[in-house]
Amino acid sequence: MSISVKQLREDLVGLHDQLIRWGLVVWTAGNVSARVPGEDLFVIKPSGVSYDDLTPESMVVCDLDGNLVEGDLSPSSDTAAHAYVYRAMPEVGGVVHTHSTYATAWSARGEAIPCVLTAMADEFGGEIPVGPFALIGNDDIGQGIVATLSGHRSPAVLMRNHGVFTIGKSARAAVKAAVMCEDVARTVHIARSLGPLIPIEQSDVDKLYDRYQNVYGQR
Amino acid sequence: MSISVKQLREDLVGLHDQLIRWGLVVWTAGNVSARVPGEDLFVIKPSGVSYDDLTPESMVVCDLDGNLVEGDLSPSSDTAAHAYVYRAMPEVGGVVHTHSTYATAWSARGEAIPCVLTAMADEFGGEIPVGPFALIGNDDIGQGIVATLSGHRSPAVLMRNHGVFTIGKSARAAVKAAVMCEDVARTVHIARSLGPLIPIEQSDVDKLYDRYQNVYGQR
Amino acid sequence: MSISVKQLREDLVGLHDQLIRWGLVVWTAGNVSARVPGEDLFVIKPSGVSYDDLTPESMVVCDLDGNLVEGDLSPSSDTAAHAYVYRAMPEVGGVVHTHSTYATAWSARGEAIPCVLTAMADEFGGEIPVGPFALIGNDDIGQGIVATLSGHRSPAVLMRNHGVFTIGKSARAAVKAAVMCEDVARTVHIARSLGPLIPIEQSDVDKLYDRYQNVYGQR
Amino acid sequence: MSISVKQLREDLVGLHDQLIRWGLVVWTAGNVSARVPGEDLFVIKPSGVSYDDLTPESMVVCDLDGNLVEGDLSPSSDTAAHAYVYRAMPEVGGVVHTHSTYATAWSARGEAIPCVLTAMADEFGGEIPVGPFALIGNDDIGQGIVATLSGHRSPAVLMRNHGVFTIGKSARAAVKAAVMCEDVARTVHIARSLGPLIPIEQSDVDKLYDRYQNVYGQR
Repeated sequence: MSISVKQLREDLVGLHDQLIRWGLVVWTAGNVSARVPGEDLFVIKPSGVSYDDLTPESMVVCDLDGNLVEGDLSPSSDTAAHAYVYRAMPEVGGVVHTHSTYATAWSARGEAIPCVLTAMADEFGGEIPVGPFALIGNDDIGQGIVATLSGHRSPAVLMRNHGVFTIGKSARAAVKAAVMCEDVARTVHIARSLGPLIPIEQSDVDKLYDRYQNVYGQR
Repeated sequence: MSISVKQLREDLVGLHDQLIRWGLVVWTAGNVSARVPGEDLFVIKPSGVSYDDLTPESMVVCDLDGNLVEGDLSPSSDTAAHAYVYRAMPEVGGVVHTHSTYATAWSARGEAIPCVLTAMADEFGGEIPVGPFALIGNDDIGQGIVATLSGHRSPAVLMRNHGVFTIGKSARAAVKAAVMCEDVARTVHIARSLGPLIPIEQSDVDKLYDRYQNVYGQR
Repeated sequence: MSISVKQLREDLVGLHDQLIRWGLVVWTAGNVSARVPGEDLFVIKPSGVSYDDLTPESMVVCDLDGNLVEGDLSPSSDTAAHAYVYRAMPEVGGVVHTHSTYATAWSARGEAIPCVLTAMADEFGGEIPVGPFALIGNDDIGQGIVATLSGHRSPAVLMRNHGVFTIGKSARAAVKAAVMCEDVARTVHIARSLGPLIPIEQSDVDKLYDRYQNVYGQR
Repeated sequence: MSISVKQLREDLVGLHDQLIRWGLVVWTAGNVSARVPGEDLFVIKPSGVSYDDLTPESMVVCDLDGNLVEGDLSPSSDTAAHAYVYRAMPEVGGVVHTHSTYATAWSARGEAIPCVLTAMADEFGGEIPVGPFALIGNDDIGQGIVATLSGHRSPAVLMRNHGVFTIGKSARAAVKAAVMCEDVARTVHIARSLGPLIPIEQSDVDKLYDRYQNVYGQR
């Protein structure tokens, strides 16, 4: 096992903990994966294992067709979708899938989340879009994710009647996008439930997005 | 005490912890029971005891008429309902009862939860049905559970103006059903509160249910 | 200090922890008191102290006029209301006050919580009533509590535009009533937000209340 | 480093923990600052650092123009707004910024929170006002905060489509205002979602505010 895979296995335990900490998942739903830099491989959660039982060793390694390469357990049932994204989007280093409550609620109405918060302009650069309804079992989900997010600012897509997929340069960035997606899904839902929302002008959304992507955080 | 009962007593402590962890219960409400394999017995939570005070020793063993067979405390006030289910449904190995918030809210309107999420198709195979209003004190609740769930895909029933009962091959499976029931009750409630929901076609529900029951998790 | 007061001081630390655990209070809002058996005294939380800093020693003892009798800190600003209840209702051994979210929301509309859940019939024996609007600083709040709860089955009153007061034979019973009050306030709110509620017939409410008060729990 | 700055760095770790504890922030959003008594300086959270990684040493010191004076990390991206408040309002000793869910939801509709709870009259002395929409990057946010809160009883302002800023004599007082702001934002939102609210008469609001500011807590 290369050092890199070893480190990614450890990172994934901590990142799955973040899904729990911020309330994005229950029971065994939800999964995080990380591309192995420089190799046609990614590391992902095993299928149907409780968050309490996740260890670095329990994580599994797959090739970009989703075939198990290393590990004792079956990979996540969402592995094909992760694999498709890594094949189609070489800039993506991490993928997250959750059924987080408010984001999934928007998806059950097939409705994009409108950009009415500066924090949403920062992270998503506009609305969070809806992807198609797709069954598990082939590449339909992966294709829906890639078709929706390619050329879109948002790192998050609401797959219709299903849940959220997020992408990022790293698994940590994808987890951050999943956390922020649920946060804005919740706030915008609550806001709209008592009356109309005030939109943010597109030119202001653009300014906020540009600044956040280039200035925020530690250099 | 047989090994089997000893193990079930320990398992039940951990499973009641799961009810707390996923926010399904407050104070002393809610209970889990497990059938003793190969015997006409089940193990269940004692009545009115705080979750913090639950120990393997505090769990009680009842026969399938709900009579106390082993243990120092009175069995849960819901014991008769659990017992009726074990008598009528020999395939059931575990029963859970909660007043989890969103599921109970659907029950107070007497409304089934429509299947608009793929996760709901996976676990419940369609809508989560409503059972009759029934008073505690005889077999009415048990009969209502069994009449509603017999021949139904859903392992969960919303007993009208009351709360949720779930069944499973094991107590752990019944707890999982209770956790997923509240999760989808919450998501579908929130989704519908801002507009109409998009249904999932029955043929797609069938495909999802079939796949999840036969493929998901570790073999 | 009598043994009894020493024990009550310790109990009150644990009972305030329950207010936090079940999400009934933020910051320093909310307080629990306990009557000293056989004496015209009660023990109560000090004013404006964080829950993390509460110790048995920080609790204060007051007489039934609300005057500080023992302790280094000022008693809760709600002490006069607690004192009034102890003077007027000799059967009361504990009083709790919170601004728990859903119960307080009902109070801001001046609306009683209708009895549409069997758990509510069990604990409250019917609706949870609204008390009058009253300012702090004299006996108005105490009088409003006593006028509303005297001869009423409910151990909880929603003081208009303010929050919840609960009573019980012991401080623990009053805390339980506060926990259950918020739980049913939340569930009934959520239920009603998507459509009309199904009422429970009064004769069934009566049966449930009678059974729960006389049969539930350990003998 | 003066003793005073050392103490403030430690205090800020604990106060950021309070933002997490009371559910006001996710990921790295939200920040607390404290003026250094007697100096034209304040201590503030570094930008984009996780709450788990915050230590006294990671906090940074800025002058009142928002320039970094001491510390290894970049200051919060909201530093300019904090600095403007300290320059314009000499009585302010602490500033807090969050995107707490319910308060931010009110801001996305551009709607002030009406004073319908006694706890709100106590802490805010009336409604919680809305400030203007303002982009990050210059003094617009700071000016909007100061213009809204100057001469207003409320220590909290809902910046439109953005989130909450609170002020206080100390950083702890500003954190308390942020906690109470979210608490009343949530309760009033929930109350209004099922019907009209009962207002509190202005003369009663005045009495409550006066009493709470002068009597509550330990002397």
